[in-house]
Amino acid sequence: MIQDIVENLRAVRERKPLIHHITNYVTVNDCANIVLAIGTSPIMADDIDEVEAITAISSALVLNIGTLNSRTIASMLAAGKKANELNIPVILDPVGAGASELRNRTTERLLKEVNITVVRGNMSEIRFVAGLGATTKGVDASEADQKSEKEIGRSTAEKVAKQFGCVTAITGATDIVSDGRRTIYIENGTNLLSNVTGTGCMCTSLVGAFCGAATDFLIAATGGILSMGIAGELAAESAGDKGNGSFHVAIIDEISKLNTETLVKRAKILEA
Amino acid sequence: MIQDIVENLRAVRERKPLIHHITNYVTVNDCANIVLAIGTSPIMADDIDEVEAITAISSALVLNIGTLNSRTIASMLAAGKKANELNIPVILDPVGAGASELRNRTTERLLKEVNITVVRGNMSEIRFVAGLGATTKGVDASEADQKSEKEIGRSTAEKVAKQFGCVTAITGATDIVSDGRRTIYIENGTNLLSNVTGTGCMCTSLVGAFCGAATDFLIAATGGILSMGIAGELAAESAGDKGNGSFHVAIIDEISKLNTETLVKRAKILEA
Amino acid sequence: MIQDIVENLRAVRERKPLIHHITNYVTVNDCANIVLAIGTSPIMADDIDEVEAITAISSALVLNIGTLNSRTIASMLAAGKKANELNIPVILDPVGAGASELRNRTTERLLKEVNITVVRGNMSEIRFVAGLGATTKGVDASEADQKSEKEIGRSTAEKVAKQFGCVTAITGATDIVSDGRRTIYIENGTNLLSNVTGTGCMCTSLVGAFCGAATDFLIAATGGILSMGIAGELAAESAGDKGNGSFHVAIIDEISKLNTETLVKRAKILEA
Repeated sequence: MIQDIVENLRAVRERKPLIHHITNYVTVNDCANIVLAIGTSPIMADDIDEVEAITAISSALVLNIGTLNSRTIASMLAAGKKANELNIPVILDPVGAGASELRNRTTERLLKEVNITVVRGNMSEIRFVAGLGATTKGVDASEADQKSEKEIGRSTAEKVAKQFGCVTAITGATDIVSDGRRTIYIENGTNLLSNVTGTGCMCTSLVGAFCGAATDFLIAATGGILSMGIAGELAAESAGDKGNGSFHVAIIDEISKLNTETLVKRAKILEA
Repeated sequence: MIQDIVENLRAVRERKPLIHHITNYVTVNDCANIVLAIGTSPIMADDIDEVEAITAISSALVLNIGTLNSRTIASMLAAGKKANELNIPVILDPVGAGASELRNRTTERLLKEVNITVVRGNMSEIRFVAGLGATTKGVDASEADQKSEKEIGRSTAEKVAKQFGCVTAITGATDIVSDGRRTIYIENGTNLLSNVTGTGCMCTSLVGAFCGAATDFLIAATGGILSMGIAGELAAESAGDKGNGSFHVAIIDEISKLNTETLVKRAKILEA
Repeated sequence: MIQDIVENLRAVRERKPLIHHITNYVTVNDCANIVLAIGTSPIMADDIDEVEAITAISSALVLNIGTLNSRTIASMLAAGKKANELNIPVILDPVGAGASELRNRTTERLLKEVNITVVRGNMSEIRFVAGLGATTKGVDASEADQKSEKEIGRSTAEKVAKQFGCVTAITGATDIVSDGRRTIYIENGTNLLSNVTGTGCMCTSLVGAFCGAATDFLIAATGGILSMGIAGELAAESAGDKGNGSFHVAIIDEISKLNTETLVKRAKILEA
């Protein structure tokens, strides 16, 4: 497993794929810098008049609904369909799904009209995708009493993966990645990551980077999330007590310095 | 006074309120990171189809007109009215008021159609709000000859506070906060803050964070501005001579490490 | 030559010109911070209802097509025409020209309807401007076999400069600046600059800053690009091996600390 991830990262750095993003304006700079740091090229373009052309020259398409609006929704749909036509992987980050009707409708529409390759979100976002009626406030306590959070995550990820024929990734204390048949747990990361805005978006963009040079999208999703987790741990070591600003900078530093040796040494992944 | 601020900060960190921003795309990442650093959760959403829903689940609404356009003006009005309906505090940053008819009209309209809880700006912006016909180039010299800048600020802040029934904050060498009855001077800060874009926006966002868990909005506005001033001083000490980029990072660092002890020890506030 | 640049920088810091940007949302924060760091004031405004007013109070206008859309294209045209009317220099960064019909059409339209003072791009973007049919993937190999890249750059820059009556700057391993009569090579910089998103945009913004207090726009363009190159070298020395995030921060640091002595000592410029 880890050797497959290492191979995927090598391919990323060799081919330097172009990663097209239609994403929010809050964390877009970090998303561009993190995909550069891992070894790819970012391109951000959201106008309906060019998204298909930009997707066509790219190796992966990242759709992030963080600050969506009517203009960009149409662009996401058009770019997604073009990507499907050209067999370019599409990565969806349903930011805040469950928090408003607009996000709910848009998430549903994207999943219905576009073949999504990987969907990545936190538990409440993916539970919304699963149609479990999650609120944005996290796991429902009464259900969590009965099953462990990890088990709920696993069954949710598997359900979504089968339902939409896509790799599904839920990030949290334990990250869970599933293609419906195989499910992987990743125990890397640090809760400091939740102190910086956009670490979820950056994680999705890293998944996009790995997908841009992948043969197996379960591996690619795991590689992107694992890279983020390890970078978080290393950034916490080098900058954690300096404060959130330094930690933020250090995340990009660590991704740019991430080598396959560190990846192998620090990875805490296991198949479920 | 300082004890009230300390209590407000404690409530912020305990309740972790959600702070809805409709803001500019220049400094939005810093605004999100600074409200995270102080202990709240940011949410940025500006589409007319979801701003009311997002405001409804938030504890404060920050309206910042830095890069406004016809689409976001309508969203600001809708979100502001929803916030009023639900008794959610609304914080207005009239960035560049006085610099263009669009900003002037929008500032006027927001103040007329929405009950603003706190308005924060620099002297020329708040003078525009006061209808004093300020230019964006600062205090009029001939008037400044006759009164001290602090006195002009005080009377301007009190006038605006009474006129619009809101707390008014003018940030500058001395920050002035007034609810029309009580007026507070804050002598913290550093002029290095003007070397980084968005320190005004971040200050407004911190006011929003304090308002999200406040009982007294004069205290909340003072708390947000005081926090920014002290963080600026500490950042100048830790990173000032490294240059603007490091100082920028250090501001977020210092907000994330700000404790009540530092707040009490360093605060230079007095009631006028 | 270097003394003219030094004088231009002195004028920038004395007059603190306002630099109006209509630019992309990916790197806008860095553009604002870099023009602040060099000593000017940024203003970012893109709504059609205010761009002319904002341009009218500014000393330079930067147009960057990084994330253009139909709304901002109209704003760029209106602001550009207003700038021409008032003899305010207009700096164009045709980001990604050649990559989509939208970018191609917009670049052409801006060059046709607005008198551009300086156009800055990489080789493939400026080759598109020159009508040489460049792809976005860089220099055509068969042609590069016959001439050195530097010579191709020189003839391209001179051709564009004459064709549009503007200063043309091509940044790359060697930066080339020409007004059609005089051509300058700049050998400063580091290839680490390509590891951070927006270093091209920041370079254009620095050109805008120099243009805001310039008498000779060839000097201004050279000054902006030289400053970026030297800041890159210094940032590589102070932060290069820490990683991309620290290098990014250090670029802004170095611009804010750049003095005329360093400029003179490190400049590697020569007239062709």
